[in-house]
Amino acid sequence: MTSDKVMTMSTNCRGWAARDDSGLLSPYEFERRPVGGDDVSVKITHCGVCYADVAYTRNKRNSTVYPVVPGHEIVGIVQEVGDKVSKFKIGDHVGVGTFVDSCRECECCEVRHEEHCSKATVTINGTCKDGPITKGGYSSFIVVHERYCYKIPEKYPLALAAPLLCAGITVYNPMIHHKMNQPGKSLGVVGLGGLGHMAVKFAKAFGLNVTVFSTSTSKKDDALNLLKADKFVLSSDTEQMSALSKSLDFIIDTASEDHPLDLYMSLLKIGGVLALVGIPCKELKLSPLSLLMGTRSISGSAVGGTERTQEMLEFCAKHEIHPEIEVIPIQYANEALERIQKDDVKYRFVIDIENSLE
Amino acid sequence: MTSDKVMTMSTNCRGWAARDDSGLLSPYEFERRPVGGDDVSVKITHCGVCYADVAYTRNKRNSTVYPVVPGHEIVGIVQEVGDKVSKFKIGDHVGVGTFVDSCRECECCEVRHEEHCSKATVTINGTCKDGPITKGGYSSFIVVHERYCYKIPEKYPLALAAPLLCAGITVYNPMIHHKMNQPGKSLGVVGLGGLGHMAVKFAKAFGLNVTVFSTSTSKKDDALNLLKADKFVLSSDTEQMSALSKSLDFIIDTASEDHPLDLYMSLLKIGGVLALVGIPCKELKLSPLSLLMGTRSISGSAVGGTERTQEMLEFCAKHEIHPEIEVIPIQYANEALERIQKDDVKYRFVIDIENSLE
Repeated sequence: MTSDKVMTMSTNCRGWAARDDSGLLSPYEFERRPVGGDDVSVKITHCGVCYADVAYTRNKRNSTVYPVVPGHEIVGIVQEVGDKVSKFKIGDHVGVGTFVDSCRECECCEVRHEEHCSKATVTINGTCKDGPITKGGYSSFIVVHERYCYKIPEKYPLALAAPLLCAGITVYNPMIHHKMNQPGKSLGVVGLGGLGHMAVKFAKAFGLNVTVFSTSTSKKDDALNLLKADKFVLSSDTEQMSALSKSLDFIIDTASEDHPLDLYMSLLKIGGVLALVGIPCKELKLSPLSLLMGTRSISGSAVGGTERTQEMLEFCAKHEIHPEIEVIPIQYANEALERIQKDDVKYRFVIDIENSLE
Repeated sequence: MTSDKVMTMSTNCRGWAARDDSGLLSPYEFERRPVGGDDVSVKITHCGVCYADVAYTRNKRNSTVYPVVPGHEIVGIVQEVGDKVSKFKIGDHVGVGTFVDSCRECECCEVRHEEHCSKATVTINGTCKDGPITKGGYSSFIVVHERYCYKIPEKYPLALAAPLLCAGITVYNPMIHHKMNQPGKSLGVVGLGGLGHMAVKFAKAFGLNVTVFSTSTSKKDDALNLLKADKFVLSSDTEQMSALSKSLDFIIDTASEDHPLDLYMSLLKIGGVLALVGIPCKELKLSPLSLLMGTRSISGSAVGGTERTQEMLEFCAKHEIHPEIEVIPIQYANEALERIQKDDVKYRFVIDIENSLE
């Protein structure tokens, strides 16, 4: 409501928004805040399309304030900086991810795990400290405190950088946290979508032996030939699954549908860790024996903090890790959101905001 | 059946056994195998009483072969050694824990995590490689391969050593695995029974700040004054519980009844670990957000391998860590098993086999 009023008063930003839970996006103009002392203003060139955009536009979490502007895999070029900004200058290539603010005082913020700050402000549909609801990256520019803005390494293509800001950091963070970056170790990747395909790419750069698990053989060719996984296993093939019993050091579980956790836990070696990065269901169910028999752990992770995000971007540049993307104009966004719901994307849509948003 | 036949043929060992799922123990004589080249024969002086003894005698896992001789917290004195035995000599003080054999070839055995060997033979009601069903420590002696026998450090009282072989290693193992031995870190201990009281003792020796969670205020005095925990919290006190939100580095969860895992997960700091050592239910249920929001992990552990068990015994001797025990004669064993089921023990019964088994 507030934002509607603001829109009619003055607008400085063009975007696309959903107006109700049909989720249908259409052009929408609104006001971004003036650039404060610590802020940078970023002219958005590209924005990745994440499943979160489906969830926000269709009010799947019952918290959407309409109109909602989705998009939290934002990249672009700095067009203005506040007088206290030290990290950026006009013309820098930068990214903004899933959160745009945090309290900067709590224990989480202190150790640069701002993603867990209880006062963190998410990039889409979040509540700013001064009241307004945040609007995402399906828009012409964004104003953000420099702490929540990342340098995109020189020469790294901006379109390819977009998916790193959510999909990339979401898998990189638990892989580093659980020390899955030790060459020669074995990793299982459950699910081969936006997150899963990034996990395979990181894993191969770390020197891991990678097995991809999928419910569909249609992913086999990409897994082995495009992404260079070492092995592909159809998760319904009980023979192949049981042959892998106690064989994996780690599993990254990106599956968003319900699936048998005990089965995957049984594939872990002694002391093995399964890191959940998808949200498969409302309630996880597993046998206590899956943990007790083998000193195994199940863990979870959601995006990552500012320091680790910057580190991940530099790792991707150094090792030439590039997401597989399909670049689309903003006018295709509605169809893209429909296709994401059918798992019909290889492997991330990226909106070419710069050349299509009028 | 087989063991019944053997019993009538020849007997060399006195013990107490349950004959049916009433679980009632009574004197029973049976045959132990001859001492092989790698074996030691241990004259049993003491045996701890573990909840497993209730489970086996009452056939709670539907796998008991009667007559069953319980007891897997065994200590005693070496009375005979095989000609290839290198670690032990007659007169040594030794212990035997929850398993008496394993394949000695698999990956688990190679890294001395024999507790996870799929061919490990448990001390009670296990199946030996050559057929017979294993009989536990409510008996006059035991014959065991030297690998599964531990040195009890000199001067460490034998009666006090007994509970270390199951309760002790069960909490020590995950504490070491998850690096809970860093001074200054904070640990929550859920449940204050045989396992929980050992966790507090280890934690204080490691220099941790310890909070005990219990469903009963009757444990408060012991927690703070006997065991020297830093804090006691009644788990039903929602105010105290929420005040501890995000405050603990680790939790050792020893509770065997059903309890709210999400609530305890919320007490962990970012990256915190809850290690399950009790078996609270058939199926664990928790929200995926309990793991995702905070990069938290839930893990499990069951006893520990031979190397870590020996290390734990030496740690207990060095730091004078002594379980709290109530020494009983074998004739009191039936009452002890009844009392364990009512959680009426502070904190471990130890049977004085040497002076009471006739």
